[in-house]
Amino acid sequence: MAGCFITFEGVEGSGKTTQIRLAGEFLRDRGLPVVMTQEPGGTPLGQRIREILLNRGDFDISGEAEVFLFAAARAQHTETLIRPALEKGQVVLCDRFSDATIAYQAYGRGLSLESVREVCRMAAGGLSPRLTLLFDLPVEKGLERAFRRIAGRREGEREDRFERERLDFHRRIREGYLAIARGEPGRVKVLDASKDIEATRAEVRLILSSFLGV
Amino acid sequence: MAGCFITFEGVEGSGKTTQIRLAGEFLRDRGLPVVMTQEPGGTPLGQRIREILLNRGDFDISGEAEVFLFAAARAQHTETLIRPALEKGQVVLCDRFSDATIAYQAYGRGLSLESVREVCRMAAGGLSPRLTLLFDLPVEKGLERAFRRIAGRREGEREDRFERERLDFHRRIREGYLAIARGEPGRVKVLDASKDIEATRAEVRLILSSFLGV
Repeated sequence: MAGCFITFEGVEGSGKTTQIRLAGEFLRDRGLPVVMTQEPGGTPLGQRIREILLNRGDFDISGEAEVFLFAAARAQHTETLIRPALEKGQVVLCDRFSDATIAYQAYGRGLSLESVREVCRMAAGGLSPRLTLLFDLPVEKGLERAFRRIAGRREGEREDRFERERLDFHRRIREGYLAIARGEPGRVKVLDASKDIEATRAEVRLILSSFLGV
Repeated sequence: MAGCFITFEGVEGSGKTTQIRLAGEFLRDRGLPVVMTQEPGGTPLGQRIREILLNRGDFDISGEAEVFLFAAARAQHTETLIRPALEKGQVVLCDRFSDATIAYQAYGRGLSLESVREVCRMAAGGLSPRLTLLFDLPVEKGLERAFRRIAGRREGEREDRFERERLDFHRRIREGYLAIARGEPGRVKVLDASKDIEATRAEVRLILSSFLGV
């Protein structure tokens, strides 16, 4: 594969979604063919799955079922969007991938790390990001940002389920992400996302310039 | 667990859905507490997943994504319905379970048997039927029955995707089911489903009476 697969990861309010947009603009300005996408909603199937995950007023979803729903979205996303883009030589910037499932479902919800890893491996069909930017910040600061975002939404709009979860849950997720980064320091670059947007943007540019040679 | 988990499996037009209903009536008449359910639609989440699987006019679903969608439905079904019923001592009759995913997705669609088995094992959380009734018949006969059923539907109703698939696909599924039965002859009882409803019903009663001691 000629392209390059880069993922953006982090807890709620880490600013990764803003940074992926800025990074995409930066790389396009440098003349690179860029595809920006996200999980789980990056495909029509993924959007249907995302709706199920977000709008479950009438029933809970078991932790295992949740993992498999993310896996279904990822399998579809990998096969129909990410791999074809990489084969065309594009740079794929993806907002969340396997690391998110491992951090949220294994570390956060306490499901078996080995099982979640295995499902993620199968869902990605062996595809792994060549570079992952982990936007790390204290959970309190991230949730404060996320809550401000919720408060700014229109009345009647539903907040993301994960944004309502407990602080401890988010602390476990952060620890999970950091554990993944410690295990794969070559792939996962940890950024201090408590800085302002411009400072983080500059750091992202440095990493991407160096990594992609642009 | 005090209850008993029994699954009904077979290709299209095998009559298993009729037979599960008759078997439920039979066991209830004998005073047993019976729960009848089906996959993937046995829970509210499963119904949402089933809708996605059946009504995908605008997009294909990759084979791997399909396996994970069935796995999500199964994990939810096992945890929220089947296990609780078994813990209450009920007899759970389930229309399709892991064998269907293995027969349809691994044997039928040609996905890795080992991977599909592993996903099924994880989705069921170690739960396995104590008895499986496999309604076997020549594919042509089953599809003829299934097509008759489709023809009898109201105009505008959508036929099941699987019912539109090729004959070869269904032959592989039948072979898959028979391979599963050969591998676990103690659990899987193969019935000749080309007989008429009454003859098959009598055979099902004999097996259930003997197995459950009623």
